[in-house]
Amino acid sequence: MAGFKTRELALIARPIGLPKDSDIELRERILEEPGPGQLIVRNRYVSLDPAIRDWMSENKSYLPPIPLGDPVRSTSVGEVVASNSSRFAVGDRVWAGGGWAEYSTCHENSTFAVVSGAGLPLHNHLSVVGPNGMTAYYGLLKIGQPKPGETVLVSAAAGAVGSLVGQIAKIKGCRAVGLAGSEEKCRWLTEELGFDAAINYKTSGDLVAAIADACPDGVDIFFDNVGGDILDAALLNLAKYARICFCGRISGLNADEPVPGPWNMWQILAKCARIEGFLVSEYFNDFPNSVPEMAGWVKEGRIQFKEQIVDGLENTLPAFLTLFDGTNTGKLMVRVAD
Amino acid sequence: MAGFKTRELALIARPIGLPKDSDIELRERILEEPGPGQLIVRNRYVSLDPAIRDWMSENKSYLPPIPLGDPVRSTSVGEVVASNSSRFAVGDRVWAGGGWAEYSTCHENSTFAVVSGAGLPLHNHLSVVGPNGMTAYYGLLKIGQPKPGETVLVSAAAGAVGSLVGQIAKIKGCRAVGLAGSEEKCRWLTEELGFDAAINYKTSGDLVAAIADACPDGVDIFFDNVGGDILDAALLNLAKYARICFCGRISGLNADEPVPGPWNMWQILAKCARIEGFLVSEYFNDFPNSVPEMAGWVKEGRIQFKEQIVDGLENTLPAFLTLFDGTNTGKLMVRVAD
Repeated sequence: MAGFKTRELALIARPIGLPKDSDIELRERILEEPGPGQLIVRNRYVSLDPAIRDWMSENKSYLPPIPLGDPVRSTSVGEVVASNSSRFAVGDRVWAGGGWAEYSTCHENSTFAVVSGAGLPLHNHLSVVGPNGMTAYYGLLKIGQPKPGETVLVSAAAGAVGSLVGQIAKIKGCRAVGLAGSEEKCRWLTEELGFDAAINYKTSGDLVAAIADACPDGVDIFFDNVGGDILDAALLNLAKYARICFCGRISGLNADEPVPGPWNMWQILAKCARIEGFLVSEYFNDFPNSVPEMAGWVKEGRIQFKEQIVDGLENTLPAFLTLFDGTNTGKLMVRVAD
Repeated sequence: MAGFKTRELALIARPIGLPKDSDIELRERILEEPGPGQLIVRNRYVSLDPAIRDWMSENKSYLPPIPLGDPVRSTSVGEVVASNSSRFAVGDRVWAGGGWAEYSTCHENSTFAVVSGAGLPLHNHLSVVGPNGMTAYYGLLKIGQPKPGETVLVSAAAGAVGSLVGQIAKIKGCRAVGLAGSEEKCRWLTEELGFDAAINYKTSGDLVAAIADACPDGVDIFFDNVGGDILDAALLNLAKYARICFCGRISGLNADEPVPGPWNMWQILAKCARIEGFLVSEYFNDFPNSVPEMAGWVKEGRIQFKEQIVDGLENTLPAFLTLFDGTNTGKLMVRVAD
């Protein structure tokens, strides 16, 4: 085999605060032949997610830190171009822990076949039927266990996950209330996506009272992508037996010092509520059972979603930073190859 | 009816920090005849619990604050001496939300028959087979769902609830590890009660490391009576799919300012763990199904427990304060009448 030449973005320094150009290096490299259980994936789209910022630091996380010198870790979709695995053949369409790179060496254990028959374009497998979209699906349905008539509150509601959570909540007969950071995002939630109410947390003043107004019967399910102050305000509005799907903590990701956790944890006791942590990776092997339903909702027009596709590996870092300054809407990804 | 003359301890000022003599008044009063659904209970034992401190303040809690001028709210066991309820007759032995008083007017909705046939003395229905003991039973078994071989960590392990949690964990085939505040308490846990290990959190130094040493496979179930720093240290030792039974927050009860919640909440996400709030009142109606099993363990010698019975209503407040200075061991109650 001739070896695949890749261009890749390597992490060369641990960022302090937001990552900057000097933390990341664009370089070329010839990939070694895949070892046992490995395969080489030609990435077509790579995913940009807030969690990647977490993996760039030395903090303990649910995945080990990205080793300095390695390509930045991210999910990608593409085709297998070389395989030393009995589970994947050259030509298979897969999503994998590829990284910010044109070609990536992946292990079969963290590579999954794109669910065939979904009838959606490949890049949708990084968004609405990819790990992001299915985070909304499994988090709401498995952790939240929504019942018709219940109130579902979602933080980062205009984001790639939150916007789907609210729409699935509506399909399940719930009242959907979103928290977002601009009037434009709030209008999009209520006027386009069918949320019952949206709260601009930047202008709402007393957030506890604003949530109480929008959720007069209390919050039965809080789908939390944020943590911090927003979690605290939601805690003071829980209905009895509330469920909190604890899905992200974007508020603490770029902080240089630890961010204190919620101050109102006692509400969990008072309301006999439940907080459950959630990693969609627990459900990867179940995707063939659930992606067709989600894809069906998309094709019926019951689920809308936004993708923001940036062209060219060299534009990855500036695009990544828009996840943290509030300018991104929709699932962000980079098209590496057509 | 002649009316029952009671002596009672009324809350006359909201305590700042620990309650003091000037917050509580011993007074005599003639009780009015019970209204519809009400009954009068002659208290024999009244319960002293950390949660009572919470109800003395104006903070929101799972029960409303005790109104100023009312007797201090607490659980009691005794006999019905007058009834305007179809559910209770004079002479019935009950436990109720009686209060620190010789006689209390109670509502049928917060009064429960002492489970007959348990074969244990009446005061045990405030301890091992009362709300405290059954908090251990339901919290561990329903929220924790222990499986043989799992590790159960308990905070305030020498307390009335924690000491039972560890013993039930052992009955269920788990490894039981307790956190307590003195060498004497730790020895009691390991030498008398059969805990596998006990950690003196006052002398252990790095508590995260001490828990890791005592729980080499991680903590599958954390039964938390404390919150605060101890919860944070436990969070950093969770095993995957850990369950936290969030049962109390004694660490924040006497604080004049809000105590920040856990700093390590992200571990809930990383470990796909669950925190569930728990009030034993949710299970009061199920006691007839569970008290006989608990009573059976007591009579077989598989469960040990301590009671600390103080005589005389006038000694209630000094006894109550021992709950907060670490000198109390075992379920604390006051004998009001023989």
